[in-house]
Amino acid sequence: MSKVTTGATMSLDGYLAGPEESGFDLLFQWYGNGDVEIPSASPRVPSFRTSAASAGLIKQEWGDTGALVVGRYLYDMTSAWGGRHPMDVPTVVLTHQRPADRPEDDENFVFVTGGIEAAVAKATELAGDKNVVVNGGQMARQCLEAGLLDEIGVELVPVILGGGKTLFGELATTPVEFEGPIALVEGTGVTHLRYRVKK
Amino acid sequence: MSKVTTGATMSLDGYLAGPEESGFDLLFQWYGNGDVEIPSASPRVPSFRTSAASAGLIKQEWGDTGALVVGRYLYDMTSAWGGRHPMDVPTVVLTHQRPADRPEDDENFVFVTGGIEAAVAKATELAGDKNVVVNGGQMARQCLEAGLLDEIGVELVPVILGGGKTLFGELATTPVEFEGPIALVEGTGVTHLRYRVKK
Repeated sequence: MSKVTTGATMSLDGYLAGPEESGFDLLFQWYGNGDVEIPSASPRVPSFRTSAASAGLIKQEWGDTGALVVGRYLYDMTSAWGGRHPMDVPTVVLTHQRPADRPEDDENFVFVTGGIEAAVAKATELAGDKNVVVNGGQMARQCLEAGLLDEIGVELVPVILGGGKTLFGELATTPVEFEGPIALVEGTGVTHLRYRVKK
Repeated sequence: MSKVTTGATMSLDGYLAGPEESGFDLLFQWYGNGDVEIPSASPRVPSFRTSAASAGLIKQEWGDTGALVVGRYLYDMTSAWGGRHPMDVPTVVLTHQRPADRPEDDENFVFVTGGIEAAVAKATELAGDKNVVVNGGQMARQCLEAGLLDEIGVELVPVILGGGKTLFGELATTPVEFEGPIALVEGTGVTHLRYRVKK
């Protein structure tokens, strides 16, 4: 059955980015430390080469993904990934206002202004039997708070950054409990952990 | 060869305790969710029962430990564990001043006033071929900053606490890189990860 997931590469002390946007070289070493290519469907985002273990998991999860939900911030920051998301699926963008240069939805991008519930509903419809991946901390937080998130994935990297941006940002209510890990894969320089949101 | 390690039970977002000392019930569920007893040598700290996987690792690590280093705060807070540390090894207490009720060192407690280097040196001497475990975030931080720490252990619990006390407190210098996990054991409700400090 289709599920809604989010995930991120995270330091051992819980950060997706270090102080003042530092630490990316350390966090994303695993994107370049192997021989197995993960192709990118985006003309602006290069393919990456990682360990066989990491690549096996990522390819499987990308293959199981039918649609994405992202925020307008990420869409703008990446310049719409040059036209298509690396994961090669339709991307639902939650926004207050449709971009002027995109008067119509197409097979690459669909714009939703009705809040996180509407965005996830649209993505679920587009995904069919496949899963929906929600990207960006603010989107993931809204999704979790609305009770829409089923699973999270953490690519845990053994570095302490000492501060920065967290997985879900400022959650309205803590603690939040998870079950698992329901899957665990050891890559090179990264441990992939998958958890189910306890409901 | 003897090594110096530290470790703690940690939330997925990097906290050893939640806001205002909350979250212990969630963090330490794994101390009571199994059938295998870990005996305690302390008259004040009860034995605990955990999963076979967790118990196997903890028993092995406790057996490999020859001495502890703790700070005076932990020593006072636990009332000297009632006379003997649960791990059943001599405990070196780093302090500014020896407690009035302990005029002499004995087989349970040794007091050191010469700083973290002297405390670790004394514990290493007491440990012989076995390892030294450093406990308490401030001690672990000083040990790491002095280049004395070889490994860390994280008992990762799938809960997000949203704030609180971190593994090493306020480190003088970040990022800090680790190698591994050099060991990984899946318990029930906890993932035991062991990392080597990159030197």
